[in-house]
Amino acid sequence: MRITTVGLDADDTLWHNETIFRLTQDRFRSLMAPHADAPVLEAKLAEVERRNLRLYGYGVKGFTLSMIETAMELTGNEAPGRLIAELLAAGREMLSHPVEPLPGVVEALADLSETYRLVLITKGDLLHQEQKLAASGLGELFAAVEIVSEKDARTYETVFARHGTGAAQAAMCGNSLRSDVLPALEAGCYAAHVPYPITWAHEMAEPPQANPRFAELPSIADLPGWVRGLS
Amino acid sequence: MRITTVGLDADDTLWHNETIFRLTQDRFRSLMAPHADAPVLEAKLAEVERRNLRLYGYGVKGFTLSMIETAMELTGNEAPGRLIAELLAAGREMLSHPVEPLPGVVEALADLSETYRLVLITKGDLLHQEQKLAASGLGELFAAVEIVSEKDARTYETVFARHGTGAAQAAMCGNSLRSDVLPALEAGCYAAHVPYPITWAHEMAEPPQANPRFAELPSIADLPGWVRGLS
Repeated sequence: MRITTVGLDADDTLWHNETIFRLTQDRFRSLMAPHADAPVLEAKLAEVERRNLRLYGYGVKGFTLSMIETAMELTGNEAPGRLIAELLAAGREMLSHPVEPLPGVVEALADLSETYRLVLITKGDLLHQEQKLAASGLGELFAAVEIVSEKDARTYETVFARHGTGAAQAAMCGNSLRSDVLPALEAGCYAAHVPYPITWAHEMAEPPQANPRFAELPSIADLPGWVRGLS
Repeated sequence: MRITTVGLDADDTLWHNETIFRLTQDRFRSLMAPHADAPVLEAKLAEVERRNLRLYGYGVKGFTLSMIETAMELTGNEAPGRLIAELLAAGREMLSHPVEPLPGVVEALADLSETYRLVLITKGDLLHQEQKLAASGLGELFAAVEIVSEKDARTYETVFARHGTGAAQAAMCGNSLRSDVLPALEAGCYAAHVPYPITWAHEMAEPPQANPRFAELPSIADLPGWVRGLS
């Protein structure tokens, strides 16, 4: 069989994530309205997040710290205490937000798990990602879970060597061209892009040029058929 | 050979960690002196940390958020903005603090790695722990690295099954009785406690009752001799 292992991204592939970040950003924008116009706030938050990414990595805790830092910078350290308390609360709410699989996910994973070894491969805060997987009820379908600090070709080589039969016999599926598709193709995997309606600016990338190992799928419901077609 | 694999904790076993947290807490105490007495501050910070542990897990980012939350609670949301900016800076400094192996660590690990498979097993922020390992220069000595959200008997069973020949042929070494020694013994490993001068209250525990698989070692320099004596 050509494909033995299927890797799946988590956030915005199996459940909502960016939507929750955007809702929090909307709340941040309202809270900051007396201090900064929306475009100024967004540009400053993006700048602070980019600057902190090297130290904080991906996830809600770093995002919360970056929101607070943005508020301090835009107010010359005069942000009202109530606003800071609200941002802390917003971060805690994101961490305890209910997790519901996106439409078609349960069926697609149940189907694939009958034939293939499923591996969850995700970035973000270690504890939070484990908790989301537990809350999603999807944990039992995965043979392995890898929470990683960065998704590059090396990551996919290592993970599919450890949990499968190597990258050449693996298919990766996710919503981010930059993190899930391009580095997986570079590692020698097959890769399917299942877009999510919105994408974090940091995850934007150009789609790969005509590559026989790549597919753009409208829905995760199309994944089992595509993977079977490869074998 | 009875022992094939040696697990090592990282923070306060291979390099300083709690000392850096304590220095930041000292700074926090000075900054908060106009608002709260030291014992009140310490009790509140411990309460907030304990309350948030379930959401934030272990590590600097959660600690920074808990300091800010403590400041807000103790000032009725009236903490000066400059103080919050200082706490954010303190968190970033902790994340970029230089990492130097504790005395005897390099020699002990180099010695052990000639005979045994070394596995780093640590809690904390994923990215930060990876960065500390890279900065320590010890990375090459480890056959595997496992950054985990909790250290219980199940964790040690899984890790030593994955990277070794099972818990019964593994020895674990760390500074925390609660996290490194007791659950490793429960999993069937051998375990050595190498104390660090100070211990976070959350990691306190009673030493195990006379257990032939347990040793208290004054220094990590004693680890290679103890492990060899088991075989």
